[in-house]
Amino acid sequence: MITLASDFGTPYPAAMRGVILDRCDARLVDVAHDLPRQDVRSGAFWLRETLPWFPPAVHCAVVDPGVGTDRAALVVRVGEHALVGPDNGVLFPAARAIAARTDATVEPFRWRVDDPASSTFHGRDVFAPAAAAVHEAGVDAVEDLDRATPTEAAVDLRFPDPAVDEEGATGEVLVVDGFGNVVTNLPGDLLDGHDRVRVAALDDGAAGTGAGRTYPVAPAYAHVDAGEPLVTVGSHGNVELAVNRGRGDETFALAVGERLRVDLDA
Amino acid sequence: MITLASDFGTPYPAAMRGVILDRCDARLVDVAHDLPRQDVRSGAFWLRETLPWFPPAVHCAVVDPGVGTDRAALVVRVGEHALVGPDNGVLFPAARAIAARTDATVEPFRWRVDDPASSTFHGRDVFAPAAAAVHEAGVDAVEDLDRATPTEAAVDLRFPDPAVDEEGATGEVLVVDGFGNVVTNLPGDLLDGHDRVRVAALDDGAAGTGAGRTYPVAPAYAHVDAGEPLVTVGSHGNVELAVNRGRGDETFALAVGERLRVDLDA
Amino acid sequence: MITLASDFGTPYPAAMRGVILDRCDARLVDVAHDLPRQDVRSGAFWLRETLPWFPPAVHCAVVDPGVGTDRAALVVRVGEHALVGPDNGVLFPAARAIAARTDATVEPFRWRVDDPASSTFHGRDVFAPAAAAVHEAGVDAVEDLDRATPTEAAVDLRFPDPAVDEEGATGEVLVVDGFGNVVTNLPGDLLDGHDRVRVAALDDGAAGTGAGRTYPVAPAYAHVDAGEPLVTVGSHGNVELAVNRGRGDETFALAVGERLRVDLDA
Repeated sequence: MITLASDFGTPYPAAMRGVILDRCDARLVDVAHDLPRQDVRSGAFWLRETLPWFPPAVHCAVVDPGVGTDRAALVVRVGEHALVGPDNGVLFPAARAIAARTDATVEPFRWRVDDPASSTFHGRDVFAPAAAAVHEAGVDAVEDLDRATPTEAAVDLRFPDPAVDEEGATGEVLVVDGFGNVVTNLPGDLLDGHDRVRVAALDDGAAGTGAGRTYPVAPAYAHVDAGEPLVTVGSHGNVELAVNRGRGDETFALAVGERLRVDLDA
Repeated sequence: MITLASDFGTPYPAAMRGVILDRCDARLVDVAHDLPRQDVRSGAFWLRETLPWFPPAVHCAVVDPGVGTDRAALVVRVGEHALVGPDNGVLFPAARAIAARTDATVEPFRWRVDDPASSTFHGRDVFAPAAAAVHEAGVDAVEDLDRATPTEAAVDLRFPDPAVDEEGATGEVLVVDGFGNVVTNLPGDLLDGHDRVRVAALDDGAAGTGAGRTYPVAPAYAHVDAGEPLVTVGSHGNVELAVNRGRGDETFALAVGERLRVDLDA
Repeated sequence: MITLASDFGTPYPAAMRGVILDRCDARLVDVAHDLPRQDVRSGAFWLRETLPWFPPAVHCAVVDPGVGTDRAALVVRVGEHALVGPDNGVLFPAARAIAARTDATVEPFRWRVDDPASSTFHGRDVFAPAAAAVHEAGVDAVEDLDRATPTEAAVDLRFPDPAVDEEGATGEVLVVDGFGNVVTNLPGDLLDGHDRVRVAALDDGAAGTGAGRTYPVAPAYAHVDAGEPLVTVGSHGNVELAVNRGRGDETFALAVGERLRVDLDA
């Protein structure tokens, strides 16, 4: 099985599918091809939320603003899984999540790239052939492949830790999903036992302790009326700011990477 | 075979694919994941238009504004098919259409749900595992599954019947597709033998008998010039209001659920 | 293997998948279903860029503004590949590209169509069944099928040739991709050895020799700063006008079919 994820939109991923199927008989499963464009951190987040649910597979994942530069290509083995993509950190949060779930270790290999047929479409010309090659050799034989060399110099990417204190927590927005739900790095159990919390955006100047407004804590969108905001625990286990049938990013005025404060004294 | 349909957008459906493939070796086929968001009636319409074309399969279909409330989960068996999703009616028009096509009966089972891992993503945590379990057991063995209990209390959903009279018909808009084509509940044979009909939107106050404008009846979009409106019979067999290479919903000023009158005296 | 491409958006392609899977056990692979709507030339371009990467397959490709008129249906055999779709030229650039890659010949067959079940959805009612029939018979047995008749009258479509001279080249925009990258018909090697070129849009009246602005030539988007324009060689081998993390069509003020001049004297 080979899974495919990218920010290529359409119809570019079809060429990747063709290249892979021309080289091997792997089952192909799409993850998504509309990951936020050239946004390595959001891509890393969504890969972490989706790839660990799959059975052992080769995961070809390309969010690659550095295409055509000298950034390297990677194969990251995690037990029976392998992740194939650019050396910009995008693969590592998912790799660590798979490792945690399967009790495996994360083993990065640098993947040697020939002068490619194009410098703008490594998804088709580099990563799809690499995924097919790893699939055909078998994940446990990555080190036998001529192009693969173990490396300790791969670019890592880690999501920021929140600062939790007695009154609440300070953190930031990891991603905003397609519906406008604001996914933060605050742990969901922060909300345990609270019916309302105060949320303040910290990057708009006026904010500070005591700033912000209070919002209901609810287990699901449908617990508030349509158009009403809520603070909930998302499917990823983190605090999420949402609006039932609306856009949380607009109501909470928060974007990717912006800092926020949640106070429990509300 | 397991088909997947939802209003989850992207990349959430990937987690459903992973969960299913981790549990069984079923062939996966996407129906669509951009069904109109939290719109049970539109979802039910599109499931009815697509699922009956498939060979016997387990159809996992989630449009679920009540996620996280106490709405139940359902498995609806229809001959060799099974539909898996929330108990909000979304499955029933498709189930009845499959039953009509295959001469089978519609048998709903309530599906017992454990305290779920999340209250916001039952597609991943409830319905995907249920679809995999039904696939593995076999559709004819649903009642042998511990979680399945026959029920007569499932929420049904039926599309409104039009009122056809000698001068024409009164009905409503079932859905608007992504191109702006307005799909009504009026039967396509209403147009037989007519070159032009009068169409009036009834919910804008000014309308009434004799209101509205007349439009050409045409068998296909290309029979009128680009930008011109037409009244046609859509692929679903109903009267459809469209604009060749344009948006019918804008020209006809009609939205989902709004009432309309078609007069044949034009 | 059957690949599927269309401009149907969603969820209409699901009915095509169902029809095919109800008739045969072919592996289904999506190319794309959001090809530019009713734009035969753009569709032909994207099919040419994607289908040749696949191993032998039946390619069902529908961009069909003439649906419901008397335009014919085609099966085009190219060696072990077959392309199935409307007789409007959309299949031919891809067919010639597959022929060039596999040293095969292009053999068009007219496909006889019954009075169809609908006049608006030939993807479901004509082309999906045709693709399944060709798959089941085998591509090398197309002429044995009752519905297939060799034809020399199929509508062809060829992309315009650029005019290359000593100072540069004059050509036109073939497509604009979803990110706004402007794909021209100018050969990529035109840029060899040049660091900057002058680009002028020719259809806005004010342009002419010496008009336009100069832009850097770069091997990949990331070689210029975010928001900055560049002239590059796209994955298709042609000159492409782009903006790193932005939209080239807006910056270069060029749309599909518009003419441009690239001067090398910059």
